[in-house]
Amino acid sequence: MSNEFIRQEMNVTGEGFLPGLAIDAVIFGFHDAQLKVLLLAYKNTGFFALPGGFIYNNEDVNEAARRVLFSRTGLTDIFLEQFYVFGDKSRHDVAPLKTIMKARGYEPGDNHWLLGRFVSVGYYALVDFTKAIPTPDSISDSCDWYGLDELPVLMQDHRQIVDKALQTLQANLDHKLIGFNLLSESFTMGDLQCMYETILNKKLIRAAFQRKMLSLGILERIAKKWTGGAHKAPYLYRFKAQTPDNVIIDP
Amino acid sequence: MSNEFIRQEMNVTGEGFLPGLAIDAVIFGFHDAQLKVLLLAYKNTGFFALPGGFIYNNEDVNEAARRVLFSRTGLTDIFLEQFYVFGDKSRHDVAPLKTIMKARGYEPGDNHWLLGRFVSVGYYALVDFTKAIPTPDSISDSCDWYGLDELPVLMQDHRQIVDKALQTLQANLDHKLIGFNLLSESFTMGDLQCMYETILNKKLIRAAFQRKMLSLGILERIAKKWTGGAHKAPYLYRFKAQTPDNVIIDP
Repeated sequence: MSNEFIRQEMNVTGEGFLPGLAIDAVIFGFHDAQLKVLLLAYKNTGFFALPGGFIYNNEDVNEAARRVLFSRTGLTDIFLEQFYVFGDKSRHDVAPLKTIMKARGYEPGDNHWLLGRFVSVGYYALVDFTKAIPTPDSISDSCDWYGLDELPVLMQDHRQIVDKALQTLQANLDHKLIGFNLLSESFTMGDLQCMYETILNKKLIRAAFQRKMLSLGILERIAKKWTGGAHKAPYLYRFKAQTPDNVIIDP
Repeated sequence: MSNEFIRQEMNVTGEGFLPGLAIDAVIFGFHDAQLKVLLLAYKNTGFFALPGGFIYNNEDVNEAARRVLFSRTGLTDIFLEQFYVFGDKSRHDVAPLKTIMKARGYEPGDNHWLLGRFVSVGYYALVDFTKAIPTPDSISDSCDWYGLDELPVLMQDHRQIVDKALQTLQANLDHKLIGFNLLSESFTMGDLQCMYETILNKKLIRAAFQRKMLSLGILERIAKKWTGGAHKAPYLYRFKAQTPDNVIIDP
């Protein structure tokens, strides 16, 4: 289910799209020690939802995910990864979809393709939210960042999708760190620790954290950050150059 | 795509199933220091394929995966997890499907649902292969274990599916170990190291391995194994009781 679905409301049979399949994207942004998620608000309904979309007949599923990410943020070259297929029959719930369509003055028939059962492939992405340009489309009021602690009620099973994406992010943090686009090109160990603490939602011990990070072998020390007081200047680091498996490079 | 598809060959429109969606299962078995995979051989075609199937309209996607696992092995209560959605348009290749259907004397029309584009949800499972009862269905010659080093050529993109499942297994070994059903209830550190070495396909240093395993906090030492020579008797271990997130318990 997605923001795109009303654009398809006149396409009663879903011609041109893979039947019964959607993607939903949990786009995390990290900034100022906060982890946020990009949400759309539907006009005249009070509904909030994840960005998402459908897959064209002649499009790869991963391509559709990149297209959605680009449409909603203007970003390409971003870490974007499948994390789970939401395929329970219980997620089939036509009520909110009918409400959204009716709020636009459209009265769908019961066999409208958007009212059928959909399986959704969940993707998560990580971006520096100063670089994203959140972009609503013609049928949403807004596309905006919401702190994880202050999410509005989300339609259908989108809250579960966010929670599962967060668990995946937390579990994969060490493993996928280098592919994440959450930090500037260079950063201090303190910046990195702050990001970890925010994502894991707990305090970490500085010495142990530094030891662990250095043992991962993915950091390169580049210079001391000039702070005026030389004896306290922290080192700057950057990630060693390499392309991790899961970064989807081509837009 | 799957073993089941010929059973559906008379169902030209795919009535009763989710359209365009399949599951494929990479079922790993570990025994005698070997990692094997369960494959089906189709009659009169020379084609080998992963066990798989389709999803009923009124069935969860995960439920369909458990049904396939049970049908091909007789096993329930097994670690079974989604690992990737294979959704590239390039995997749409009707030739082998037509061959299999023709080998059974069935000549499908071009708009037969089985000849359309399918997206497949990949699952992997881990079993003690002494406990599985590989079960072909009426249209396959055999359902058997094949060593990873000696896999036959697989149809469509099934070799890629196996490779990706193996990468996932290797990457998740520490994290998911407790949920795996690859060892007997109790085992020595040597048994565990042998399993690791087989799955990772490399030798590990004994002392470092033991230190790492104990640091994971998931092992419980239960007794010394009696070997006759008391001073060399290795300890037996078992996994601490807990239900990991991803074990799908209900058959």
